[in-house]
This record gives sequence, C-alpha cells and structure tokens, in this order.
Amino acid sequence: MSRRQSRARRSRQSSSDRKFVQRPFQALSNPYKPMEIISEDQVESIHQASLKILRDIGLRVESDTALRLLSDARADVDITSKRVRFCPEMVEEMMTDLPGEFTIHARNPQKTVRLGGNSIIFATVCGPSFVTDLDRGRRSGTHADMVDFIKLGGSLNVFHQDGGSGLEPLDLPPETRHLDMMYAQITLTDKTWQPNWMNTGRRARDCIEMAKIAMQTDDEGLKKRPAIIGGLNTNSPLLFDGGQADGMREFALAGQPVHITPFTLAGAMAPATVAGAVAQQNAECLGCIALTQAAVPGSPTFYGHFTSNVDMRTGSPAFGTPEYAQSVIMSGQLARRYGLPLRSSSTTASACVDLQAVYESDMSINACIQAHVNYMMHAGGWLEGGLTCSFEKLIVDAELLQMQAAFLEPVVINDDTLGLSAIEEAGFGGHFFGTAHTLERYENAFYEPILSDWRNFETWRDDGGRTAAQRANRIWKQILKDYEKPPIDPGVDEELKAYMAERKEQIRIEGV
Amino acid sequence: MSRRQSRARRSRQSSSDRKFVQRPFQALSNPYKPMEIISEDQVESIHQASLKILRDIGLRVESDTALRLLSDARADVDITSKRVRFCPEMVEEMMTDLPGEFTIHARNPQKTVRLGGNSIIFATVCGPSFVTDLDRGRRSGTHADMVDFIKLGGSLNVFHQDGGSGLEPLDLPPETRHLDMMYAQITLTDKTWQPNWMNTGRRARDCIEMAKIAMQTDDEGLKKRPAIIGGLNTNSPLLFDGGQADGMREFALAGQPVHITPFTLAGAMAPATVAGAVAQQNAECLGCIALTQAAVPGSPTFYGHFTSNVDMRTGSPAFGTPEYAQSVIMSGQLARRYGLPLRSSSTTASACVDLQAVYESDMSINACIQAHVNYMMHAGGWLEGGLTCSFEKLIVDAELLQMQAAFLEPVVINDDTLGLSAIEEAGFGGHFFGTAHTLERYENAFYEPILSDWRNFETWRDDGGRTAAQRANRIWKQILKDYEKPPIDPGVDEELKAYMAERKEQIRIEGV
Repeated sequence: MSRRQSRARRSRQSSSDRKFVQRPFQALSNPYKPMEIISEDQVESIHQASLKILRDIGLRVESDTALRLLSDARADVDITSKRVRFCPEMVEEMMTDLPGEFTIHARNPQKTVRLGGNSIIFATVCGPSFVTDLDRGRRSGTHADMVDFIKLGGSLNVFHQDGGSGLEPLDLPPETRHLDMMYAQITLTDKTWQPNWMNTGRRARDCIEMAKIAMQTDDEGLKKRPAIIGGLNTNSPLLFDGGQADGMREFALAGQPVHITPFTLAGAMAPATVAGAVAQQNAECLGCIALTQAAVPGSPTFYGHFTSNVDMRTGSPAFGTPEYAQSVIMSGQLARRYGLPLRSSSTTASACVDLQAVYESDMSINACIQAHVNYMMHAGGWLEGGLTCSFEKLIVDAELLQMQAAFLEPVVINDDTLGLSAIEEAGFGGHFFGTAHTLERYENAFYEPILSDWRNFETWRDDGGRTAAQRANRIWKQILKDYEKPPIDPGVDEELKAYMAERKEQIRIEGV
Repeated sequence: MSRRQSRARRSRQSSSDRKFVQRPFQALSNPYKPMEIISEDQVESIHQASLKILRDIGLRVESDTALRLLSDARADVDITSKRVRFCPEMVEEMMTDLPGEFTIHARNPQKTVRLGGNSIIFATVCGPSFVTDLDRGRRSGTHADMVDFIKLGGSLNVFHQDGGSGLEPLDLPPETRHLDMMYAQITLTDKTWQPNWMNTGRRARDCIEMAKIAMQTDDEGLKKRPAIIGGLNTNSPLLFDGGQADGMREFALAGQPVHITPFTLAGAMAPATVAGAVAQQNAECLGCIALTQAAVPGSPTFYGHFTSNVDMRTGSPAFGTPEYAQSVIMSGQLARRYGLPLRSSSTTASACVDLQAVYESDMSINACIQAHVNYMMHAGGWLEGGLTCSFEKLIVDAELLQMQAAFLEPVVINDDTLGLSAIEEAGFGGHFFGTAHTLERYENAFYEPILSDWRNFETWRDDGGRTAAQRANRIWKQILKDYEKPPIDPGVDEELKAYMAERKEQIRIEGV
C-alpha cells in the first residue's frame, strides 16, 4: 500500500463525519434496450381495448370550455351529462404528429434538460401535506419546511428538477399558496421546475407568468423555450375535473409540456387486474391527450403512468408492488407505440423511512429504468403513499438514483481498462493496491456513495454504529448548513415579488 | 363495499399480528430477454483477454493431483512453481460439450429444481461466522443458531435451496463441523442442499456420502440424479488452492454440479476496473472449468460471478454497487456465450439491517434478475460483506425475492382481465370495490406481502408504529414457533448418525 493510500485510509477510518461528496449535475440517458414484458400483439390488445372504452363509455369532462373544444374536434359530446365519446379514428388521428422529444430550459442553462428519447429526468416529490424527519417527527408542512426541502433538492445534483416544491405549506392561505411555492422554486434552485399549480386554470396561468419573469421572456419566447412541466391527473375512473381541464389548456396555450397521469389504482379506481387498470389508464391518457390537441394542435404532451393496486383486504393503496413494476414496463411499451415520452414515479406506501420504504422505492425505480422512463416524478422524498415528504428519504433516494446513474454509464473496454499488465504485476495470490494501473485510477476508480458506510463492523460500531437513516439525518443538516442560494438578478427578484403582491391583492379582493 | 370486504378490512386493521402468509414453493423462471450492457464484440474482447491471461500468465494450482490432471490434458505445467499455462485451443476445446442445464434432486421430489436455461434458484446464505438479530445483537455463530436459521430458510417457500447452513457453528470442533452442518441441512429441510464443505477433498467426500444416504442411493444413482451443488472459489488473483482443487475433483467424480467462483474484488484482488476484473474472473473461471473437465470430461460445471470492488480510500470491500451490477450483467453475457448456467449473489456491505442493507441487496438482486442468473447464492440472510448472517435480513430478503417472483409472472391479457364490463359498471368517478369483476378476484388479485405494512399512518402508529425490521423480528419468531420438521425415514436418520459417529471417531484418531 502506498503512503497516500495509508493516509487516506486512516483519515476515512477515523471519522464518520465525511465531507459530503456527490457526482456533478449531468444529463442522464439509458443507452440499453428497454425491457418488454408483453408482446406487440398484447400492446395492440390494450390499445384497442382503450379505444373501445373511449368509444363506448367515454370520459366525463367537467369543463365547458373543454367540452366545446372536444365538440369542435368532432367528439360526441353530451353537454348535460358532460360525457364525451371519442370515435377511434379521431383519437388515432390526434395521436399523430405529436412531438416526441422536447427541451425544458432552466434559468441556469447548464441545468437545461431534454425530455424524451433515451433521456431520464429525476424530479423531487410533489404534493405531500405532511413532512417528517427523525428529529421532529411527522407534522403538517410549513413554508419553512418547504424552503428547506427545495434547498436540499436543489443542492443534490442527481435531481434534475424541482418536481413541485416538495410539500404544501399549510401555514399559508390556500388561495395564494401557489404563488409562494412557485417563488420559492424559482429563487431557491436554478434547475427546471414543475409547479404544483393547485388545480385551477388561473393558478396555472400564474405559474406560467412567473416562469416568464424568471426566464425574462414573453409568451412567444416561453413557447419556443419551455421552462416548466405541467402535471395533470384524471380522477379515475374516466373523469377529468374542470380545474385540471382548464389548467391543461393554459399549459397547452403557453406551449409548456404536460403529462396526463390517470390515477388508476387497480381494485379501487380501476379493474382489479393489471391488464384492466393499464387499459383504463391508456384510455384516460389518450382521451386527455386528444383534448390537449383539440386545444392546441401539436402541443407537447406526454404519457403518464401511476397505475398501482390497493390491498384488497383493507382498501389501502399499495405502491412499489410487483403489479406497479409490471404496469410501468407495460406503460413504457405503450408510450413507445405512440412515440411519446413516459412519466412515472418512485413510490412507497411505508409509513416511515424503513426497509419497506427502500424496497418499494427500489422496485419502482428499477422498473422505471428498465421501462425507459423519461420523467421520474416523486423521485426524492416521497413517503407514505405521497402524503408525507421526508428529509431522510430524500437523501436515501439521492443515493438510489446516483447508483442507477452510475450503473447506466457504459463500461469502457480496451487494452488499458482490461489491465493485463496489472494482473501480471500483482502475481499469483498477490494484490493490486500498489500496481501502477491501480494508482493511476486511485481517485475515481469506482462509484463513491453519499450515504453508504463500508467500514468494517468494529470501526462502524466504535464510531457510533449509526444506521443509514441516522446518517441521512446528519447529511441533510450538513447540506442545509452549506447551502448557497443560486444567484438571481435583483431586478428579476423584484419583478417576481411585485407580481405576487399584485396577484395576492387581486385574489383578496376578487377571490381569484 | 360488501360485508365480506368490510369484515376483512376490520380484522386486518385491528391487529398487526397477521398470520404469516406466503406464496407456495414453486419453480421460478425468467421469461423475458436478458439485459445486455456490452456488445458481442466486447464480450469477445473479454474472452480473448482471458485466454491471453491463461496463456501468458496462467494459474497457480496448489494440488499435485490437479497438476497431474492438467499436465495429462496437455496444459503447460511447472511442478516446482505449480504454475499452469493453458493454450487457447485447449481451453476452447474443453469448453465444448459442457452440459448447459441439469436437475438437482431434493429428498422431497416436489422441491427438486432445474439449474440452467431460464430457471432461477434462490439459495440462503453460506459462510458467515457471526450471527445477529435485534434481540441478541451480533455474536459468534453457534449450533443452535444454525439450526434455527436452517429451519427458517426451509420454512420460507421462496428459497429453493439451503445454500450452506447459513452460518458456521463455531461452538463445534472445526475438524468435524462439516458433518453436523450437513446433517442439519439434510434433516431440517427437505429442499436441495449446497453443503459448506470446509475446503478439503475428504470433507467434500463426507458431504457426498451423506447425500447418498439421504437420497438412499449409491455412487451411480447420485451421479444420475445429483442432489447437491459444490461451490468452489479461487484465491484471486489466479490462485486455486489445494483444498478447493481436491474438493472440486470429488464433486466432479461424484457427478455433482460445481460452480467456479473467482473472488475478484476490483482494486484489491483484481484490476481497479470493471473490464479488468471481469476479464480476470473469466480467466480464472475458464482455467478451473478446464480442470473440472480434465478430471471428469463432461462433468456438470457452471459459471460463477462474485466480482465487486473495494473502497479505494479504505480498502474495504463494497457490495451491491453499480460496478457489481454491471459485472453481473456482463457475466450473464459471458455465461451465455459458453452455454453455461450463471451463479451470482445478493450482497451488501452494511454492518446492520438498515436502508443500506436493502438498497445494496436490491441492486444485486435486480442485476441478477436482468442478467438471467440461474443460481442466486446468499439470497437470504447475508449481511456485512458475508461475515454475518441475520435473522431479520432473511425475512426482508424473502420479501424482496417474492416480489421479484411475482413480477416475473406473465401478465394475462384477455377480454376477462381487461375488464371493460367492470369499467362500465363502476361509472365516471365511481369505484370498483363492489363490481362483479373485483369480487371474483377478491382473494388473489394482487401480490400479498409477508412484511410490508400498507395500513394508513394513524392505524400503523396506534398499533405500535413498528418498522419493517421490527416486524421481521416478530415474523421469524412466529415461523420458528410454527416450524414442523419435514418427515424423514427413521432408518435414514440412523444411518446418517452412524456415518457421522464413525467419521468423528476416525477423525479423532487419524486427524482426517
């Protein structure tokens, strides 16, 4: 062993307070073939079943504007019942000429990302009302917690995007909360954003306006260089509520990519089979995509997967299950059939950051990677079926995703990496610590974890015997301590604040 | 919701002491395409590099018998230095006509398994000297612990095989320990066995003799119907010790399948690159496989993967890393090139049953599944780089593997599973709890976990708020309480005991 190695070994062994080390921010893509678990014929069966659902049953769309658009596009609309039936030819036609890949621009151009093809975007969790950490336990989310969470997600390079401010700040008024959330996203991280737009068309418009200010651009500029992703959910089965429909139209008009994600929990909001739940998901996706195209032909839209199942004995939602994994892979096959990017998630139903939280998330993540997911929502911090956002879980998730990113890097095979000279130098039963081949690679030979502890049992125990969850707790505190706000033009900041103030006043007076 | 559902829901919600539920014992296979991360040309580069290693550097084989066999097979043997060099043609020739698939017979014929092709065998951990559980902590392994561990592995249907009695009973004399281990394996479980044969040819012979008694057969009978797997390791780099070589010959003479598994930790016992470590692994595999064929032409042999890396700063072995996952997939590609079954493992370096233990094991398991591993060793109970065997980890592992088994079951797609009638019945925004389609599937619609808790936060908390590790602790105790010894003919048991007594006396007097 060289002196340098001995020194490094001593310093690592002597302290558990390692400096926080992570890989740089980088675009990620999956160079391998996607996994397929159903045949082309079976993909076609699901496609045909979903066309039949749209033709014979249809969707209920609770927005008069949307109903008008669909009627104009030759759908069979019943205004009274808000029921829309789609003839298969119309759906097939509207699915052609959709863009299959787009760029989402960040205010820091180095953090601009591609969506589609083989690329993968990891986004932090969106939606929880609760927040938890090992020190303070589970509690309602606050503005202070949200700020901390966005800072952490922004500091962790493996996340490509703030997926929705992490949690809802329940201490702020619900009518104007979305403004504070979007402001925090814009100012605390320089990555791209998916706003949590709070389900009205007007609020979606606010997020779009704030994105324009952040990017210092106008309607046309934002359309050419999208900066946000709009997330839309159906109220499965077969219901698209007015707020979602109106928000969808705002994003489409602004040229910002949207994903349509049905909430198809098999056994509760969808049939109690993977095949049936995915067929229904597909029908809801296609119907709503048709609506985006009726609103703005050619507007960027992509395919959302969220199909999971419930526990049939209790009705509890289950996530990261084998059925979840199967439906992700099948959704990848369907999305590719339509030439659309795929959105899915990393999920777990566990009530705390325990072994279950990891293995359910891991089953989701591995299925997403094999399915060639392009946009992985909820990839950092998700806990308890999405009700709670956890600081320690965010750190574990960062490790899980970094490991996947390292796994996806192609193995280099050439005379140099094959290292036959080192094998000769080491000798029978010898060791490679001191070979020239090893010393050349000393610094960056292998994946460097952010959370894993590989020290031997005695060293680990004598240094406090901290579990990975306890180490994650220290890590997020260290990151918050070291956090530096990404620079923003003071004029832009002023403009954002002025917009918020004006809108808050308007909402106070007019209600919207 | 039906009355039956309400009742079931109440009973589940009211107690965390669920009856232990698991899937039945069943053969497992992977019907999907294996993942490939290197090109055919790259596979060929590794193959050629390993032939070059065997030709120019060779192996050191520390057994005179083995050296004679290799010399007879036209290898270039230097008796003094024990160095063997292999001409590429000789290796290529010895790799032809190897059997690609075999059956391992269990004393309960319903637990007989196939090894090779698309089949997957999950085996419990082999080798740890320490044992741990949440109540008693980490301690040296004893006979009592080993008995408990074999009972647990035998009771968990997802494990197809006892992979080596779980842990070493350090309270028994080392010279005769293997006899007690094999006796415990034979009598406490009716699945197939991989003995931990303790590295001498004579002890390997003891395990074979005991297998003959267990199966009530003779040399020819056991050869026709193999009942055990022999695991062999090289002392990387490029060293095959005498005990391993002699044991290998015993298994080959008895016609019992062996896997050759090099201990190629990149950066320590192999080059500090994935390419170099896999090339060296491949060279060691091919060289030792040639030796099995020199001993007994056509004897069943398969390809072992154990390549991982060390932490370059501390020298600590790391497991379940991205490099580990890459090398598993590459090993699958190489094993298929040779038409041989693949052995790999589920591994972690974590010092306790924590989040890290799960995500490292999960990364190993997912890579194994994608690589089309045929024999997954250490799949239950492995902890701390294989030094410790954990009772709670065994339960978590059972859940991880059961989830994979469920994921690998093909999705059924037909009119019935697509469930369009149920979608019609549920209605817009309705629910599926009460549809006929759901009620027909109520019992077995989805994966039923053994460890996961999907209840909502409040119910979970009010019922004790137990983490998955704490629940695993209760589960293994419950299984031990319910354990029933599989029936064995009293005559067979007597014969096994007599064999052990005779051998113990002989070893006491003669030393071997």
